[in-house]
Amino acid sequence: MIIDHLDDPLPGSSLRPTPTGAAYTDREVFAREQADIFEKMWNCVLRADAISSPGEWKKVTVGREELIVVRTRKAGVKAYYNVCRHRGMRVCTGDEGKAKKLQCGYHAWTYALEGELVAAPNLTAMPDVDREEYGLKPVHVRQWLGYVWVCLAGGDSTAEPPDFDTEVLGEVRTRFGQVESIDNYGIENLKLGQTKTYDVAANWKLIIENFMECYHCATIHPELTEVIPEFADGLASQRKNGEVHGSSFGEDIQGFTVDGSAGVAALPAIAPNQDRKYYAITVKPQVFINTVPDHVIIHRMFPVSEQRTIVVCDWLFLPEVIEGVAEGRYDISKSVELFHRVNLQDFEACELTQPSMSSTAYARGGALVPSEHHIEEFHTWWQSTLALLESAEMHQVRVG
Amino acid sequence: MIIDHLDDPLPGSSLRPTPTGAAYTDREVFAREQADIFEKMWNCVLRADAISSPGEWKKVTVGREELIVVRTRKAGVKAYYNVCRHRGMRVCTGDEGKAKKLQCGYHAWTYALEGELVAAPNLTAMPDVDREEYGLKPVHVRQWLGYVWVCLAGGDSTAEPPDFDTEVLGEVRTRFGQVESIDNYGIENLKLGQTKTYDVAANWKLIIENFMECYHCATIHPELTEVIPEFADGLASQRKNGEVHGSSFGEDIQGFTVDGSAGVAALPAIAPNQDRKYYAITVKPQVFINTVPDHVIIHRMFPVSEQRTIVVCDWLFLPEVIEGVAEGRYDISKSVELFHRVNLQDFEACELTQPSMSSTAYARGGALVPSEHHIEEFHTWWQSTLALLESAEMHQVRVG
Amino acid sequence: MIIDHLDDPLPGSSLRPTPTGAAYTDREVFAREQADIFEKMWNCVLRADAISSPGEWKKVTVGREELIVVRTRKAGVKAYYNVCRHRGMRVCTGDEGKAKKLQCGYHAWTYALEGELVAAPNLTAMPDVDREEYGLKPVHVRQWLGYVWVCLAGGDSTAEPPDFDTEVLGEVRTRFGQVESIDNYGIENLKLGQTKTYDVAANWKLIIENFMECYHCATIHPELTEVIPEFADGLASQRKNGEVHGSSFGEDIQGFTVDGSAGVAALPAIAPNQDRKYYAITVKPQVFINTVPDHVIIHRMFPVSEQRTIVVCDWLFLPEVIEGVAEGRYDISKSVELFHRVNLQDFEACELTQPSMSSTAYARGGALVPSEHHIEEFHTWWQSTLALLESAEMHQVRVG
Repeated sequence: MIIDHLDDPLPGSSLRPTPTGAAYTDREVFAREQADIFEKMWNCVLRADAISSPGEWKKVTVGREELIVVRTRKAGVKAYYNVCRHRGMRVCTGDEGKAKKLQCGYHAWTYALEGELVAAPNLTAMPDVDREEYGLKPVHVRQWLGYVWVCLAGGDSTAEPPDFDTEVLGEVRTRFGQVESIDNYGIENLKLGQTKTYDVAANWKLIIENFMECYHCATIHPELTEVIPEFADGLASQRKNGEVHGSSFGEDIQGFTVDGSAGVAALPAIAPNQDRKYYAITVKPQVFINTVPDHVIIHRMFPVSEQRTIVVCDWLFLPEVIEGVAEGRYDISKSVELFHRVNLQDFEACELTQPSMSSTAYARGGALVPSEHHIEEFHTWWQSTLALLESAEMHQVRVG
Repeated sequence: MIIDHLDDPLPGSSLRPTPTGAAYTDREVFAREQADIFEKMWNCVLRADAISSPGEWKKVTVGREELIVVRTRKAGVKAYYNVCRHRGMRVCTGDEGKAKKLQCGYHAWTYALEGELVAAPNLTAMPDVDREEYGLKPVHVRQWLGYVWVCLAGGDSTAEPPDFDTEVLGEVRTRFGQVESIDNYGIENLKLGQTKTYDVAANWKLIIENFMECYHCATIHPELTEVIPEFADGLASQRKNGEVHGSSFGEDIQGFTVDGSAGVAALPAIAPNQDRKYYAITVKPQVFINTVPDHVIIHRMFPVSEQRTIVVCDWLFLPEVIEGVAEGRYDISKSVELFHRVNLQDFEACELTQPSMSSTAYARGGALVPSEHHIEEFHTWWQSTLALLESAEMHQVRVG
Repeated sequence: MIIDHLDDPLPGSSLRPTPTGAAYTDREVFAREQADIFEKMWNCVLRADAISSPGEWKKVTVGREELIVVRTRKAGVKAYYNVCRHRGMRVCTGDEGKAKKLQCGYHAWTYALEGELVAAPNLTAMPDVDREEYGLKPVHVRQWLGYVWVCLAGGDSTAEPPDFDTEVLGEVRTRFGQVESIDNYGIENLKLGQTKTYDVAANWKLIIENFMECYHCATIHPELTEVIPEFADGLASQRKNGEVHGSSFGEDIQGFTVDGSAGVAALPAIAPNQDRKYYAITVKPQVFINTVPDHVIIHRMFPVSEQRTIVVCDWLFLPEVIEGVAEGRYDISKSVELFHRVNLQDFEACELTQPSMSSTAYARGGALVPSEHHIEEFHTWWQSTLALLESAEMHQVRVG
């Protein structure tokens, strides 16, 4: 019932309905979202260059699982559940490290970077222990845009994840548009200029919904609407009349910075219609990509509970810009400050919305104005994803 | 079952039973109390003079709902759910403020003090949006004793709340007694001398039960029993043999103060049998009214969870006394100190009782001595209130 | 299902299975463990000499209940639920005290040290109140090894607890072995040299399992394996080929101390095969007993939640050693330091294991190597204890 009333008309207007408040507060709904969305889809978890040499690993969280992402000797990247196959202790402790092998600190069960069990006390006395079977449990891994993407579908890598090439990569390219190709930005070759982590006391869907509309821009984003005046009209930067549409900088604006002053060196391969423009897309379920001529901003979301979400935001620049910052030739602080303020403004709005979700005054949900149509599409996707899974589960029960 | 064994006799005595421990610890019971008691009955939430000029508003909590109480231009008082009708954000932030209109900080939907939607970005492009239908959701409001009382019954003001004149006002006057009329104290014209807020780690029912008997007075209230010696006998101040009965000050006591010294200027209209007397009544579900010749003490309870309750206590005096305090002619500190100590003593007892409620040694509840008969009446009311609603719900299910 | 798959074979090896991760994270399972294990079996709660003279009492927690353990005038020890029979307030506040009678601080209901109700305001006006029936609710008490053991079985002392002489005392003596008799250590006459309390963020079963195997010793206990070299081979100190087996000190080790230096005065009655040996046994559900020639270490566990356990560890020595410490003739710090480090090392491992219990990678549990056979016996006991009770409950439902 919680996920099932989007087709009911709203009284007293032609505005479109939202999910009920319970969709943002119910623990069962959140558990299903973790299981059926975050633990089944591709998640962008890490800059690939954060683990640059063999044996470097980092811990990440996807859905309710803690994973180790490690660079192997063959320069590939693998990811495993951080769970020893013997008695379950966390194999890696701390947030990151570098090791030739991954050894559990409890009974010294030892795994190769490629995952298989290679040593354990008295292991030779247990010859029937299959080294692959008792290897670390892997998850699916891909790299794109310079990031590591993982998918937990099926619980191990023998199960089929959603097809990355069509579901993520193709979908993003299509939505971004052929001419405005995201490839022009060369994101996989950019370097991290700044990263900021936000601990947001709001449901992950409120954060996505906020990102999908600009009806709020005039009210809460004074700096952003100064730089991109058309945002003051409340229209988001994505499609318009079926065509991709970047949002133009104001006439007197020199760059995408907090005060409209010039930015840094532009990305060399961008097309003319990408100059002086801001583009933004959402890659469901947890990534936002924002591009401007001289940098790219990428948000990754990690839902913690029905009312708490960690958001990590990266600002990416050309390698020569990052080098230039160290040498004092470039200053990215004004570039970073603009979207940092936007983030703080947005997340405060989300945090002030979350508590209302449990009010009886929101028991039937809220209303979407016409310029919030992207949100409606998101709600439809969300509803059908959970409903499909629900019906599949019911089917399983019936035939099982 | 939790609410249903008050008629079972106790073994080994003629003492009367209490509800089981689970009535004070069970989350489901508490949720039903919030829904069926606090969100259906009249709640005393605010001194009316705390919002004295048009546009002044304060936030209050009733049951599980956050409300805005605002003084309108026509000098009336209105109360609304603090939930924007668009996407749900808290319309008012902070605890209080003053505004010509109530504007949501997310998308600038703007409401008149009287509630209707009066402005929003692009609203003229959405002509079918009904300004009343999309106004702030109101709750019922009344004023009495200088306080704002609200009732959430029905979820909006078109549903009928319990009749204030009979259920609250009439009931209080009757219980207080004709001769000892509460009206003599002129409470609506008194001014706030002091307010104290107590965060009590106990179920709200323990706080009411504590207030309803004086069997504990000799043990925990040395100052109070010094001022009112008959409390040392363990009898509460309310009815006795069917007649209202104020509790007399001790012979050498000059006023209702922490050391029995003289108080301040007496309330002019009190009757002879109200002089040198203390009266107290409980207005279910969340108000205690205490009167003495020179001031009135009013407690409002706000249950937060099954084991936590906020209690706000006001000490009210004549306007000239409050003025005199500022000018150094009057000192109310000894008056305030007496009941402040009583509060601290009572709430400590409640907090030391709460953890036992989950013990198997209290699984069948406790026992009431004869002088605790008011508590038994409260338990009977509580049981029948929840049971009636339970049977109504069952009926709904059967016929629905 | 959670407690029911220990007989399923593991794939890819002949290793033995453990319970599923849910057994360590599920609140319902934990509630059943509290009710059916900790609140039904004998718990070791307190050094008897901690309450040495009549009227001295201490608070302890068993399962979900707070108890008062008090020494009575006849030099016996009694234990009661800390719940007043009137309205339930905690009778004793604070952690310990001394009193001639136990008086509730709310309404002054007063109980003899032996439990019966002896006084209350207006009690003479309530002649039908049975003083025994309204006495403090007792629990079963025994003393052994200088400790007070309590059992809540049946909820009051008229119900039959498990037989202490066979279930605890006899079981411990048998498992310790006739020749190596635990009695030789004279534990009941030892004195407390040091006590340390550990607040461990792990399920109680992980702590028991850790104590039952030494497969981890080489990895995490450098000091212990220095003192007892055979522990480096991963074999625990208990039975071996059906025979009791103490673990020998290393050749150059002088005592059971953190650096292998000499300990203090040996316990006079130990047998030759107890010299230079370490013995350890688990007394289910919450006691570990460790003996070495000059002291005894006793752990008591108090589960708080499915993921939190308080462990109290006592180091016991001869009375003359304790006297000597005060006079500077003896130093027990190196003796205490050895097992304190072992405790910290073990509990860190347990805390790093707990979070994995909720991973899908541990949904089917882990694997036990052959030297962890004690754990398998523990799991079998745990499963059958909960299952038996489950089937008894089902039977009750069927016939009730």
